[in-house]
Amino acid sequence: MNLLIGMIGTAACVIITILLSGSLSDFWDGASIFIVLGGTVFATLASFSFDRIKCALKAAKLAFQKENTDLNADIDYIIKIANIARRDGLLALEEVSEELTDPFLKKAIMLVVDGSDPELIQSVLETEIDATKARHADIRAVFDTAATYSPSFGMAGTIIGLILMLVDLNDMAALGPAMAVALITTFYGSILANIVFNPISKRLKTIGTIEYTRKELVVEGMLAIENGENPRVIKEKLSSFLSRSEIDAKAQRAAKAAEDAMSKAEK
Amino acid sequence: MNLLIGMIGTAACVIITILLSGSLSDFWDGASIFIVLGGTVFATLASFSFDRIKCALKAAKLAFQKENTDLNADIDYIIKIANIARRDGLLALEEVSEELTDPFLKKAIMLVVDGSDPELIQSVLETEIDATKARHADIRAVFDTAATYSPSFGMAGTIIGLILMLVDLNDMAALGPAMAVALITTFYGSILANIVFNPISKRLKTIGTIEYTRKELVVEGMLAIENGENPRVIKEKLSSFLSRSEIDAKAQRAAKAAEDAMSKAEK
Amino acid sequence: MNLLIGMIGTAACVIITILLSGSLSDFWDGASIFIVLGGTVFATLASFSFDRIKCALKAAKLAFQKENTDLNADIDYIIKIANIARRDGLLALEEVSEELTDPFLKKAIMLVVDGSDPELIQSVLETEIDATKARHADIRAVFDTAATYSPSFGMAGTIIGLILMLVDLNDMAALGPAMAVALITTFYGSILANIVFNPISKRLKTIGTIEYTRKELVVEGMLAIENGENPRVIKEKLSSFLSRSEIDAKAQRAAKAAEDAMSKAEK
Amino acid sequence: MNLLIGMIGTAACVIITILLSGSLSDFWDGASIFIVLGGTVFATLASFSFDRIKCALKAAKLAFQKENTDLNADIDYIIKIANIARRDGLLALEEVSEELTDPFLKKAIMLVVDGSDPELIQSVLETEIDATKARHADIRAVFDTAATYSPSFGMAGTIIGLILMLVDLNDMAALGPAMAVALITTFYGSILANIVFNPISKRLKTIGTIEYTRKELVVEGMLAIENGENPRVIKEKLSSFLSRSEIDAKAQRAAKAAEDAMSKAEK
Amino acid sequence: MNLLIGMIGTAACVIITILLSGSLSDFWDGASIFIVLGGTVFATLASFSFDRIKCALKAAKLAFQKENTDLNADIDYIIKIANIARRDGLLALEEVSEELTDPFLKKAIMLVVDGSDPELIQSVLETEIDATKARHADIRAVFDTAATYSPSFGMAGTIIGLILMLVDLNDMAALGPAMAVALITTFYGSILANIVFNPISKRLKTIGTIEYTRKELVVEGMLAIENGENPRVIKEKLSSFLSRSEIDAKAQRAAKAAEDAMSKAEK
Repeated sequence: MNLLIGMIGTAACVIITILLSGSLSDFWDGASIFIVLGGTVFATLASFSFDRIKCALKAAKLAFQKENTDLNADIDYIIKIANIARRDGLLALEEVSEELTDPFLKKAIMLVVDGSDPELIQSVLETEIDATKARHADIRAVFDTAATYSPSFGMAGTIIGLILMLVDLNDMAALGPAMAVALITTFYGSILANIVFNPISKRLKTIGTIEYTRKELVVEGMLAIENGENPRVIKEKLSSFLSRSEIDAKAQRAAKAAEDAMSKAEK
Repeated sequence: MNLLIGMIGTAACVIITILLSGSLSDFWDGASIFIVLGGTVFATLASFSFDRIKCALKAAKLAFQKENTDLNADIDYIIKIANIARRDGLLALEEVSEELTDPFLKKAIMLVVDGSDPELIQSVLETEIDATKARHADIRAVFDTAATYSPSFGMAGTIIGLILMLVDLNDMAALGPAMAVALITTFYGSILANIVFNPISKRLKTIGTIEYTRKELVVEGMLAIENGENPRVIKEKLSSFLSRSEIDAKAQRAAKAAEDAMSKAEK
Repeated sequence: MNLLIGMIGTAACVIITILLSGSLSDFWDGASIFIVLGGTVFATLASFSFDRIKCALKAAKLAFQKENTDLNADIDYIIKIANIARRDGLLALEEVSEELTDPFLKKAIMLVVDGSDPELIQSVLETEIDATKARHADIRAVFDTAATYSPSFGMAGTIIGLILMLVDLNDMAALGPAMAVALITTFYGSILANIVFNPISKRLKTIGTIEYTRKELVVEGMLAIENGENPRVIKEKLSSFLSRSEIDAKAQRAAKAAEDAMSKAEK
Repeated sequence: MNLLIGMIGTAACVIITILLSGSLSDFWDGASIFIVLGGTVFATLASFSFDRIKCALKAAKLAFQKENTDLNADIDYIIKIANIARRDGLLALEEVSEELTDPFLKKAIMLVVDGSDPELIQSVLETEIDATKARHADIRAVFDTAATYSPSFGMAGTIIGLILMLVDLNDMAALGPAMAVALITTFYGSILANIVFNPISKRLKTIGTIEYTRKELVVEGMLAIENGENPRVIKEKLSSFLSRSEIDAKAQRAAKAAEDAMSKAEK
Repeated sequence: MNLLIGMIGTAACVIITILLSGSLSDFWDGASIFIVLGGTVFATLASFSFDRIKCALKAAKLAFQKENTDLNADIDYIIKIANIARRDGLLALEEVSEELTDPFLKKAIMLVVDGSDPELIQSVLETEIDATKARHADIRAVFDTAATYSPSFGMAGTIIGLILMLVDLNDMAALGPAMAVALITTFYGSILANIVFNPISKRLKTIGTIEYTRKELVVEGMLAIENGENPRVIKEKLSSFLSRSEIDAKAQRAAKAAEDAMSKAEK
């Protein structure tokens, strides 16, 4: 949603600036849209597989949704699981995992329930995280590439306009408007890159970063649970994933509750 | 094929844009082609060995073919092999490997059949994957370099045109056309980079990524087979290589079949 | 404070240069501020999460404060702790840690007091340092992105101005001022990037570097303390973190005192 | 030789383009050569040590020679050595090494003959390869830096020319030629970078890549020989360094001979 | 000294080029120096801490001195020490180290004399080398940043000049000179970056590379000495740090002497 607000805001700034001293119709040119949008789309199509582009479009749709950045809920959930495991044993987690919809957390719990070797668990989960990272990087590459092609075709369009203008210089009165039209493609290319492709790519990176942190947190937490570590120590470990300020904010709220819980959880 | 469609589409956008307001003949200049294409080709030739360029041309040909992005078939094949190995022993895989055309998979199976040490298998196969990656990067470098040279020589051509125009400014009427011709080389350089070299390089990277994933999958799978792991666990591991959406799509289709197979494959 | 002085100084240089040959009013254009500042803010908003931007603003506030670059105090503190640990045992450090406000040092001491395994201590602390680095890189990315967007929207604004100017070339007298206004957005974009966003990003990196060094020093020091190493050897190890010149400066001051201390600290 | 042909070809394209519509004398300007070549040479001299630049010039000379890209000969040689070692023992290699001129291969064989520990051999040889890579990167940096300086000084020269032209605008007739002369430095800077420095740097990288592959191949091969591995397995391992196509080509030629050799070499 | 010669040479090329067709006074503009130099200095000040900038200035002073690139002396010294250690035992090195002024070599010898564990020695020394590298990179960042700011403020100054010129186009005769003055800031920015900041940064990197090689050589050598390795083997190992050509040159000179020494040094 952030992405949508940002995009609309940016577009509004550009449009209002135009309206303040001219009219939008001066910035409309069919042929310019043709070369910038068409060139960018086809060159991107040439650079990637249909599959990759389909994934990229699906990811772009995700990028418009509100992301959940609160890791505290995840830490609390892991601690809750840790307490269950301490009380009722690791096998009790099987029941817990059934209600889960996050496939990564589910897989992590199942591996622990199966009593797999800690190193195997880590290797399976890290392999999945690495594969996710690589897949995300591949998807972002689609938008990064489009963000490179669009100003290039914008400039190519401007050069085409300039050449056509220069070939026939008889009508000096038409010089200005012709040059204006030529510049429109550069404008389109820049706008397309900076309002659409770059923000989507960066937003996907932002979302990805949160996802990796959450998954690393799950790995760290589940390994600690299998290792039978004290929930307090697990909390300590996992809180490293939060930024200092978040810890402080949470700390004040949780101070009292935590102390009570810890005294009980103490071995 | 994707690459060809993309290239033709991009070129069509450029050509149609030109035709909308001028004629293609205004964009034809023999000398400009000479400096942009000639300069790019010879400078690229100077930068690499004949062997490397020959490989690059062969790779470019591959880039125009339809790539196979479906890893599900590969996973299914590994699971099929895993079931054979469980039923008939590792030696039964020798027969299987004889019908294979993919040299990497064949080598992987042979190493497992030979009963080699898992670490040796991994080291031999990873060495091959790394060597493949390095070779691909070397080949892409040819197109990346050409994509850097072509706008450079385009700009050099434009500067040559401008200098020749400025040296003799008597005929003001010829100024426009002369400048138009000067700009044509910049246009050629940009087009050559963005319609030919950049898409080929990126497409090769796309193809390479798929190939590495497939090979990593083979390594992971064959090591699990030699380790005598349960086909269900192997499937779980390998499915990390698929993107989440693909898993879901496949999951619905395969749900029923999988359950049956698993109950039989259970130890 | 350095950052504030630098920014004011840079701005002063720009303003004085303008005043030397014109008036500031020629560089004021509401619409230009609108597209450059608005475009940059909204595009940055589109690229990151609210949380990330909130953290970035908080970090920017920190960037304006005077940083503490003196590692000698930290080394001396570690040596002081090392001496306490040698004299009164590791448990005596618990009391010491109570008066501390730095959560990282406190955590490090608590881990040592708990008698945790050295590898566990290192892993917990390194995990925190790595998480800090990743968080800082994420925050800097906000300013780096803004520093990329602002000249882009500056140039977009100039192109808008040029197009509007070229569309209506009748009034040649207005040509100059119109072009001047068009150029103002480029000016704004460049100034915003080079006086605000780039210095903040680089200053954050500077501050981060000092923080990481300090934390690495704490890890190195606490591990050596738990290992029961001689304070003299610890000092030797930690002084590697200082630049040679700082060692020399300190060495002359500390020469006499050190010798005395060492002879006592000798095993 | 490739480099020389490429450079001459590129230069020819530029010269012919000039001759097609003007004369070379329009592109000759002593002062321009002075600032572009002089500035580039002195700034490069300021950036590196005399030693580094001397090495760079020596390397540039090598870059003009025909490189040997055929790894098959190297593999065959290693296999030959492997067969000798199997038949006559590792000590028999000492005699073999005496006729060698390649110091790296010689050192590798001597280490094996000395019966050194495989890890020591690998560490000594990898250290040498890494040092070679670092040295090559340092040498390429000289040409990369020169390739960055030359267009910079080209542009500086153009700005000098424009300033001098603008200071005295009385003679409008001289405007064109003056501007032409100003542009010549940009032309020189671009040509120098794209016909001389960039191709040399890239060619050195090409040559380096072949050299590293060959050395890695020697390490892999000699370790396998010391390990007493089967020449067939060694060949299998080493052939990973060849690109797939080369293997196929070689495979057809070698198919018959290989089978014979293998059956004999079989344990 | 190389740096000074290079800088003076580059400046001379620029000045002579100017003098060939105009006068230096056309390139003097107080306000331009104000914005370019002032902006660069203050923006750099804003980006780093006073400490960092002080270190950078100290390093810049070092960059003007003649660097010592001859590693042969260092290798010979290590071999000399190795022979002493073989003859008189490791403790005899304590006396040797007293006359040394290089703190790194001294520390390395002391660690060996103390009979520290090889892994501890390596870890302490590598930590110091890594810290040195990080410190050098931080220092170079100051000059790299200044080299980025100076053309940026040069361009900002030119835009200021153009805007002021365009605001008042009445006096067409003043147009040329006004534009010339506007361009001067771009000239200053480019010159400042390419004659001062870039060469200093690159020269610091050159000096750093030599220093790291020398330190790595010391680590390698001292570890070999503690390990009691044969001086001949040590020499072999260390000579990998020299470039091939240097080995050859040295080899011819040293051929006879080496053979004698080796026969004696043989175990």
